[in-house]
Amino acid sequence: MGMTMTQKILAAHAGLDKVTAGQLIEADLDLVLGNDVTAPVAIHEMEKMKIKKVFHKDKIALVPDHFTPNKDIKSAEHCKCVREFAQDQDITNYFEIGEMGIEHALLPEKGLVVAGDVVIGADSHTCTYGALGAFSTGVGSTDMAAGMATGKAWFKVPSALKFVLTGKPAKWVSGKDVILHIIGMIGVDGALYKSMEFVGDGIKNLSMDDRFAMANMAIEAGAKNGIFPVDDLAIQYIKDHSNKEYKIYEADEDAEYDEVYEIDLSSLKPTVAFPHLPENTRTIDEVGDVKIDQVVIGSCTNGRIDDLRVAAKILEGRKVAKGLRVIIFPATQKIYLQAMEEGLLATFIKAGAVVSTPTCGPCLGGHMGILAAGEKAVATTNRNFVGRMGHVDSEVYLASPAVAAASAVTGKISGPQELGL
Amino acid sequence: MGMTMTQKILAAHAGLDKVTAGQLIEADLDLVLGNDVTAPVAIHEMEKMKIKKVFHKDKIALVPDHFTPNKDIKSAEHCKCVREFAQDQDITNYFEIGEMGIEHALLPEKGLVVAGDVVIGADSHTCTYGALGAFSTGVGSTDMAAGMATGKAWFKVPSALKFVLTGKPAKWVSGKDVILHIIGMIGVDGALYKSMEFVGDGIKNLSMDDRFAMANMAIEAGAKNGIFPVDDLAIQYIKDHSNKEYKIYEADEDAEYDEVYEIDLSSLKPTVAFPHLPENTRTIDEVGDVKIDQVVIGSCTNGRIDDLRVAAKILEGRKVAKGLRVIIFPATQKIYLQAMEEGLLATFIKAGAVVSTPTCGPCLGGHMGILAAGEKAVATTNRNFVGRMGHVDSEVYLASPAVAAASAVTGKISGPQELGL
Repeated sequence: MGMTMTQKILAAHAGLDKVTAGQLIEADLDLVLGNDVTAPVAIHEMEKMKIKKVFHKDKIALVPDHFTPNKDIKSAEHCKCVREFAQDQDITNYFEIGEMGIEHALLPEKGLVVAGDVVIGADSHTCTYGALGAFSTGVGSTDMAAGMATGKAWFKVPSALKFVLTGKPAKWVSGKDVILHIIGMIGVDGALYKSMEFVGDGIKNLSMDDRFAMANMAIEAGAKNGIFPVDDLAIQYIKDHSNKEYKIYEADEDAEYDEVYEIDLSSLKPTVAFPHLPENTRTIDEVGDVKIDQVVIGSCTNGRIDDLRVAAKILEGRKVAKGLRVIIFPATQKIYLQAMEEGLLATFIKAGAVVSTPTCGPCLGGHMGILAAGEKAVATTNRNFVGRMGHVDSEVYLASPAVAAASAVTGKISGPQELGL
Repeated sequence: MGMTMTQKILAAHAGLDKVTAGQLIEADLDLVLGNDVTAPVAIHEMEKMKIKKVFHKDKIALVPDHFTPNKDIKSAEHCKCVREFAQDQDITNYFEIGEMGIEHALLPEKGLVVAGDVVIGADSHTCTYGALGAFSTGVGSTDMAAGMATGKAWFKVPSALKFVLTGKPAKWVSGKDVILHIIGMIGVDGALYKSMEFVGDGIKNLSMDDRFAMANMAIEAGAKNGIFPVDDLAIQYIKDHSNKEYKIYEADEDAEYDEVYEIDLSSLKPTVAFPHLPENTRTIDEVGDVKIDQVVIGSCTNGRIDDLRVAAKILEGRKVAKGLRVIIFPATQKIYLQAMEEGLLATFIKAGAVVSTPTCGPCLGGHMGILAAGEKAVATTNRNFVGRMGHVDSEVYLASPAVAAASAVTGKISGPQELGL
């Protein structure tokens, strides 16, 4: 029996010819990531372990993105802790606001992750880099500390689910709709501790930003990781962003999968996850009449340039519904500048949206758009758990940038079709 | 004995031919202002008074600008309270994010205040509108409630200080430097409950944005209000922004002043207020070597287009100092869009600054740039009290946009001259 793509990467990083699902291995790490919420805990753990030096100053990324620009004194102290640690340890990839962005958009953009890498990050959406053909997964702060200290991590080799994607998505259907559809189909524990391996000739019809959004939400099905084959588009992305050597791993033909799902992308419709789980999906024609108070476009899932282009296409020449708050978060400073130069930000402002500096912001109930009791938001983010964006009696509806932008115009959950688009 | 400009406005609004300093009067209000911090208190007061209707739905302005986009659940609930009140009362001038900005930049921009008006606002920097030849002053939330209910307010008629401004400020010397110089000269209680009346042929050399910054900080000298004569520039500003009828009041020639100060604007230098009072001023050549952690450019004092133009002129083609956080807050959505269209925002981003959606933000220790213990900021804001921008052991240095931008490049308090400008 052969290995899956994920298993091949893990075997290579464990110095083994062969691994099998369930096996415990120790793998070398190409990158260890932390943010302003998780890194301080890891730093204190390292201090407790009396470890003086990180394993490699170039292989750690510290991105204070969650509560920045500093929300309050507590977040300011956390950021200060990370900043001082980065200075003491001479960490190459510490990013201050101004050169920064949301970690999972920033790391690929800065070329810090490439195909074949093994990456751990003390943030659950670290799985994003699977879009580049890397194995990447979220860990706790203690594992981050051990990773920073030793450059290694223990893993139980995951089994896998195979998603064979065919066909081409219809207009206004994006990677976000694909992953919401999948989570709706298999449930939030449908891929528990498994790899989600996406294959099939439909992948060529998905942009890199589509793939980032899909890999990003693998964790929302409980997966250990999500991963895409490294095709020409992925190679081009890597070459455009990185000088690092990349390595392409492919699943063996006789690799074992717990399940194989076939999905015809052309059959999918814009999809919305209703409160309070990402698996509560409905297609846009099934959503009914849901009046909303806020729209959030951004996050590590959907704050990239393609996402903003789609939103701008819909908001161009239109106005945000009266009384609605629409907040747009370009995911990185680079994306912010590009969106400005392409005229997207001007479109947003003229439509009556506000544009924030890159931050995780309201996605995790952090800041910059928190909901009061009874309020409803459509968001391009990745989680709609109870209280995720504020009050426990508020609601988050997950959707694509296209649906979020159309909803911004109508003031209720809507697809672009409702605007005649 | 004649009346000062302020006294004339108050007399007219009290239906009296003559008022004198110290007299208690009841004046009609042209506008009552509240924000997301103060309006909820006023709304609850109105409820306690069992008052069902505001005195005039067009003469109340509600601007949720302090903790927006909603910082946390508490601020979300405060904003919700204001929003629902505005809906119930059919308030014309309620501003949602997207159509909004910092109150004291927004109201003149929206044409809601013109020369001759009497305005109270539940925010201490309501005195800003003196730049337009209006009497405007900060009040508590209870006074705001009474004002919303009755359209009237009690005042003790203030005596006045006269500031005779002559000459033309040197390059890089702005209204902010003038008012910091004055506060340094007379102290933070130097104008306690008095009017600061600015006169003299030097005023023609001050832009409207210079005047807004100066009137804005009258309260920092303890003044009841600050006020400028209504010259052609002011009239042009009013006509460009408002359809309201304005009325020009001029001080009588024999008006009485407690003190008269003569200030030659050409003699002033860029001025910085050291912690922890606005009166602790030093000229730029006296500041010494003060390394900083953060620069804030924005606020109701200095977030207007002239301010951003000056900052961009200095940051153009330059880079923010390594490790420094530079946060720029255009004061309103309109200013944000204009600054984008003029290329100023692109200059900021390329230099390594971040640009925030309009909000009061860190000025009052709200959010979006709070300081940790031991950190120092140069800010174009108006107050540098202990803990104003975060931790009680942090420090704020008040300065002009020019000094703030130059400091952003050097990483320490600097004038543009240090950059050879």
